[in-house]
Amino acid sequence: MQIQYIFELIGTLAFAISGAMAGDERQKHDWFGITFIAFITAIGGGTLRDLFLNSYPLVWFNDMNIIYTIFLGILLPGLFYKYFVKLRTTLMLFDTLGIALFTIVGLEKAQSLGANDFISVVMGMFTAVMGGVIRDTMINKTPTIFVEEIYATACIIGGITYLILDDLGIDRNINFIISGSLIAVIRIIAVKFNLSLPKFYK
Amino acid sequence: MQIQYIFELIGTLAFAISGAMAGDERQKHDWFGITFIAFITAIGGGTLRDLFLNSYPLVWFNDMNIIYTIFLGILLPGLFYKYFVKLRTTLMLFDTLGIALFTIVGLEKAQSLGANDFISVVMGMFTAVMGGVIRDTMINKTPTIFVEEIYATACIIGGITYLILDDLGIDRNINFIISGSLIAVIRIIAVKFNLSLPKFYK
Amino acid sequence: MQIQYIFELIGTLAFAISGAMAGDERQKHDWFGITFIAFITAIGGGTLRDLFLNSYPLVWFNDMNIIYTIFLGILLPGLFYKYFVKLRTTLMLFDTLGIALFTIVGLEKAQSLGANDFISVVMGMFTAVMGGVIRDTMINKTPTIFVEEIYATACIIGGITYLILDDLGIDRNINFIISGSLIAVIRIIAVKFNLSLPKFYK
Repeated sequence: MQIQYIFELIGTLAFAISGAMAGDERQKHDWFGITFIAFITAIGGGTLRDLFLNSYPLVWFNDMNIIYTIFLGILLPGLFYKYFVKLRTTLMLFDTLGIALFTIVGLEKAQSLGANDFISVVMGMFTAVMGGVIRDTMINKTPTIFVEEIYATACIIGGITYLILDDLGIDRNINFIISGSLIAVIRIIAVKFNLSLPKFYK
Repeated sequence: MQIQYIFELIGTLAFAISGAMAGDERQKHDWFGITFIAFITAIGGGTLRDLFLNSYPLVWFNDMNIIYTIFLGILLPGLFYKYFVKLRTTLMLFDTLGIALFTIVGLEKAQSLGANDFISVVMGMFTAVMGGVIRDTMINKTPTIFVEEIYATACIIGGITYLILDDLGIDRNINFIISGSLIAVIRIIAVKFNLSLPKFYK
Repeated sequence: MQIQYIFELIGTLAFAISGAMAGDERQKHDWFGITFIAFITAIGGGTLRDLFLNSYPLVWFNDMNIIYTIFLGILLPGLFYKYFVKLRTTLMLFDTLGIALFTIVGLEKAQSLGANDFISVVMGMFTAVMGGVIRDTMINKTPTIFVEEIYATACIIGGITYLILDDLGIDRNINFIISGSLIAVIRIIAVKFNLSLPKFYK
């Protein structure tokens, strides 16, 4: 439990950083805009999951640690901007860390609320990608899930892997690390080698 | 009850087909993108209705038939693509079948949960059109409800007709077919003759 | 209570007018489009707040006065269009009245449902701005919160002011007027003198 909570905070930090920097990329956002976008990126997916699962109160309503973590994620790239931008792939790496952790966090929460396997995997993927989807839709960008072809797919593969290993009796914390790492590795390989899924209709 | 469930599955199939083909029209979606769009088209409106009415669990969370039906709706145009595309109006016809069935399904569900007449008609229209609205907003298209002028209006007329006939004591299943057909006929006539509503402010 | 209900209806009227006229500005909406946009502007923020706070039934589901007020807000600019458009700043003024009233209405509702101070201020701002955000996202416009830089910020300052004055024991109705006026004044000054917030990352 403790470890999973730490994973959730790290995922939140990663998404807040990626959200704040994504907002900045567009160059036109003031501090409110940046803050708003960082929040949506970090909590949008989990909020949607909780609405769908009727799980109240929403995580960020009663846990100020989540809020502080998001503000930290907004401040960090402001303070160390040069270092964050120099690494060309920084934004992608933080986003990858975010989706890897949030997929498993979301899946486990859905399971604990009694969702079946299919819904749990979908809710894991939702937790990971929907914050970014809502953000992109709001700033009129095409959501990453439609542009980077192996993105949500990595979350789904990681989610299914987690369920299979769970059935095999693997310890939950170890399983979290294995399945989460798988998601990150799949996405990084896909981005590096520019892999894509086949078109469905020819 | 049984008959209405079948209507719901047919509506889901129609929307999944129309969603999958709408995704494909844009040419840039891979199989994940197509699947995602088909799902949103088929369940977006009903999900929004259930969130608004506090009706849990969401329909698709506990009923795998809905899920299988959507996957069938994605597969069919893939397998018989030539036949689906040849008919120029195919996409419109499936979408029309979807809004006709979902308007009444949504209205009845809202009524059964104690909503008043106004809200029931609005929820019927929402169930029918909001899946498409969410989909179009996400892929940065102008939602059909703003482009095709007699679209949501057909749903509203059909919904009001259903309520009137229900007050007159018409059997629910017969009423379903009458009011649903009315929606389909209004829309098909509007598209065929390019009818539009008057502008409000001159 | 009575007074706050009147404030809520006035805010709803202001937002419905601003929504109907915003729709019209784009020139391509028929009466359904105008009505839809006016509704979303007027009830979108409050609906999102209620979903987040698990507060059911949604305000507009059981209170037909809200519905009648929105229809009035759609009719008024239709009947007196010349007068509404001549004043160049009319749209802005109605929108400002809307955000001022809705911020405090939303904050008070969140508080009464047990939300902490941070969440109450955020929910107040949400109630005020999210209707417009959803509307703008749907018609593919960049949301005002990203364009007009001191907009949501005014709501946040007003909300914090309300909490401080409330702690000091100021009467709720008087506090409502003071904090609401502050929001309106800040925004009007910001628009008049074209003030903006600093960019966060340099």
